[in-house]
Amino acid sequence: MNTKTERIQKDIEALAEFNATPGAGLTRMSFTPEHRGAQEYLVQAMKDAGLQVRIDAAGTVIGRLEGREPELAPVVAGSHYDSVPNGGNFDGPAGVVMGLEIARTFQDLGIKPKRPVEFVAMIEEEGARFGGGLFASRAMAGKVTRQELETYRDKQGISSGEAMKAFGLDPEKIGEAVRSKGSIYAFLEMHIEQGKILESNGQDVGVVHAIVGIKELRVTIQGRADHAGATPMDMRADAYLAACKVALAVNKGAIAAGHGTVATVGKVEVFPGGFNIVPGKVVFSVDIRSSKSCCLDQVMETVNEALREACGQEEGLSYEIETLMDVVPVELDEHICGLLGKNAEKAGFSYRDMVSGAGHDTQVMAEIAPAALLFVPCRGGRSHCPEEWTDYDQLQKGIEVCCETIMELAEE
Amino acid sequence: MNTKTERIQKDIEALAEFNATPGAGLTRMSFTPEHRGAQEYLVQAMKDAGLQVRIDAAGTVIGRLEGREPELAPVVAGSHYDSVPNGGNFDGPAGVVMGLEIARTFQDLGIKPKRPVEFVAMIEEEGARFGGGLFASRAMAGKVTRQELETYRDKQGISSGEAMKAFGLDPEKIGEAVRSKGSIYAFLEMHIEQGKILESNGQDVGVVHAIVGIKELRVTIQGRADHAGATPMDMRADAYLAACKVALAVNKGAIAAGHGTVATVGKVEVFPGGFNIVPGKVVFSVDIRSSKSCCLDQVMETVNEALREACGQEEGLSYEIETLMDVVPVELDEHICGLLGKNAEKAGFSYRDMVSGAGHDTQVMAEIAPAALLFVPCRGGRSHCPEEWTDYDQLQKGIEVCCETIMELAEE
Repeated sequence: MNTKTERIQKDIEALAEFNATPGAGLTRMSFTPEHRGAQEYLVQAMKDAGLQVRIDAAGTVIGRLEGREPELAPVVAGSHYDSVPNGGNFDGPAGVVMGLEIARTFQDLGIKPKRPVEFVAMIEEEGARFGGGLFASRAMAGKVTRQELETYRDKQGISSGEAMKAFGLDPEKIGEAVRSKGSIYAFLEMHIEQGKILESNGQDVGVVHAIVGIKELRVTIQGRADHAGATPMDMRADAYLAACKVALAVNKGAIAAGHGTVATVGKVEVFPGGFNIVPGKVVFSVDIRSSKSCCLDQVMETVNEALREACGQEEGLSYEIETLMDVVPVELDEHICGLLGKNAEKAGFSYRDMVSGAGHDTQVMAEIAPAALLFVPCRGGRSHCPEEWTDYDQLQKGIEVCCETIMELAEE
Repeated sequence: MNTKTERIQKDIEALAEFNATPGAGLTRMSFTPEHRGAQEYLVQAMKDAGLQVRIDAAGTVIGRLEGREPELAPVVAGSHYDSVPNGGNFDGPAGVVMGLEIARTFQDLGIKPKRPVEFVAMIEEEGARFGGGLFASRAMAGKVTRQELETYRDKQGISSGEAMKAFGLDPEKIGEAVRSKGSIYAFLEMHIEQGKILESNGQDVGVVHAIVGIKELRVTIQGRADHAGATPMDMRADAYLAACKVALAVNKGAIAAGHGTVATVGKVEVFPGGFNIVPGKVVFSVDIRSSKSCCLDQVMETVNEALREACGQEEGLSYEIETLMDVVPVELDEHICGLLGKNAEKAGFSYRDMVSGAGHDTQVMAEIAPAALLFVPCRGGRSHCPEEWTDYDQLQKGIEVCCETIMELAEE
């Protein structure tokens, strides 16, 4: 193992120490003591790497390497370091460590770039504490509203604004986190793939040219709870049977839409949930993702049709659809993608162009800056679980490609 | 309202006071303070009605009206007074109050019957605390094992034997509750229908000539949890889609079996249950009920086939079936059913022969004695919920039919 791989491993393992569920994966919610511990580690590591460190109004740690021409728009690079409950060590931290490692490389080589370079460690990307997610990048894009800071609450009923205050941030000043359009020259994130396309194809890195749009729905089917023994089959309004029909239709709909479109019913609650009671209500999620808006719309239409049909078949069934998330697909920057591919090739790494099926801060940053995203493989495609794993030399390959790319961008 | 209806109402309301969830339906788990309160009320009410009261080894309150020929096998009548969580005031207590009221009628009329009559108030019929259910009747039929008393546990991990001990009963002596075959002349239960067949047909009472057999299964489908965005449709092993196919097949299977056969998937848990995670595991119940064994078997075969087919379609899916309950259909006693019908007719009440789709203590008692069950209507068929309701004059009609029948049986 070379020095760089050792440094990467040390950072990943050190960050994983700030964890609310040791032995059961990594749990690091935003604005908690675990967040504080990891933040302090990052601030120190950035200072040690020769960066000027500040924390923006949303809580993002920003370590700046001054450029030879400080007035030029900076290159910004990084990822997030919050986690899902009982998640893994890599979803997020991989890209944060990328930033640390590249800062150290600049330091080791004694290079002062033409443009400033800012390495960022973002928070609340997962939305695991308050919902919504992509918090730090949305704050930079000016999309976090004061209302959200009051209404998005955690399980204990604490609003994100209250949690910020307790953490020493001022929710009133959230606007100070905004980075105007054009003020960032380029944004680059590195992240684990969270799928197994790279692994299955034995490839080192994935150059993401588009991030899917997401429609996340909460569907409620209302039927009538009846005694399972005393209610003949023809006197039932079974909400679960209708929900099953819809789930199967959604699956077929995604396959029919094609172009890599996916749709998932992942969260299902059946009420009242007794083995001897006909389900009176089912609440379930529908998650539709595609790089093409028309495919998202097509599956959405399938959901509507399937609900109409399933609930029209039996008297006493009705439904409601709530849209919890509606994010359009995002095309990433061709120029940066081109550099990433070229630098992968130059280093002798295998790579592919791909679409990200998960949402990332990059999709928000793309609204205010040319942006790109590099994937590194992860074992078995497992993510959001304790088993999440990427070999450190795989991380290093991704970091090397990012490093070359950032060095080039910073000289443009 | 006449005196009898008032007495019925008073009993039902008094029993409903011993409740762990006031304002949210009736919750009376076995061997709890609420059980104790209701038990003390019943003991006193039975004593006031002139009965000799004892509590058997399983906790059943038995009030005996001595016969002119005390050595004759007694007529036994009653029901249970435990409840499901957040249940109603009638499921169970209706039949217990039937016993109290008939004892009072004997007392009012100064009648000493030829045979002894025993009014019973049973417990843990629902199995809501320890699982299994039909506890008091199974104890009488000698079907409660010492092992069960150690292994059936509540949510806090307390075994039914430990709970009995804390309640002042000796689990070592459970065998003393056994009533040998032939030692009971006739058993009669009254219960609310828990369906809406009587109500829909505007009928006063239902003479139950059979209680369905029940197969209760717990099915686990194991798939592979993957990120919903990063996993293409053709790389998934979605346990929920397979579960949906099985639920729809089970429904079709019950309808195809006919003869009043019903089948229900009522309890469903989807793991890990994130909106953005492909379901890796689903655990669900299948409840099959029929008065015909061949129909039970037919639906069971449908479940097996559907699971084989659904899990065979995608690599990475497997399943397991556990049988939690396997109760055969029970034919009730023709002679007692005949008396119930005759007495309903004599009183000018409308009635029908019917099948019970729910399990009852009667089905266990039928193994050791000629047994019968009378249904009274319940509003909207609602049961196991706070809205459970039967008009007091409807209860009185049922009690009147039972009273005449018991008086006749006690003179045979």
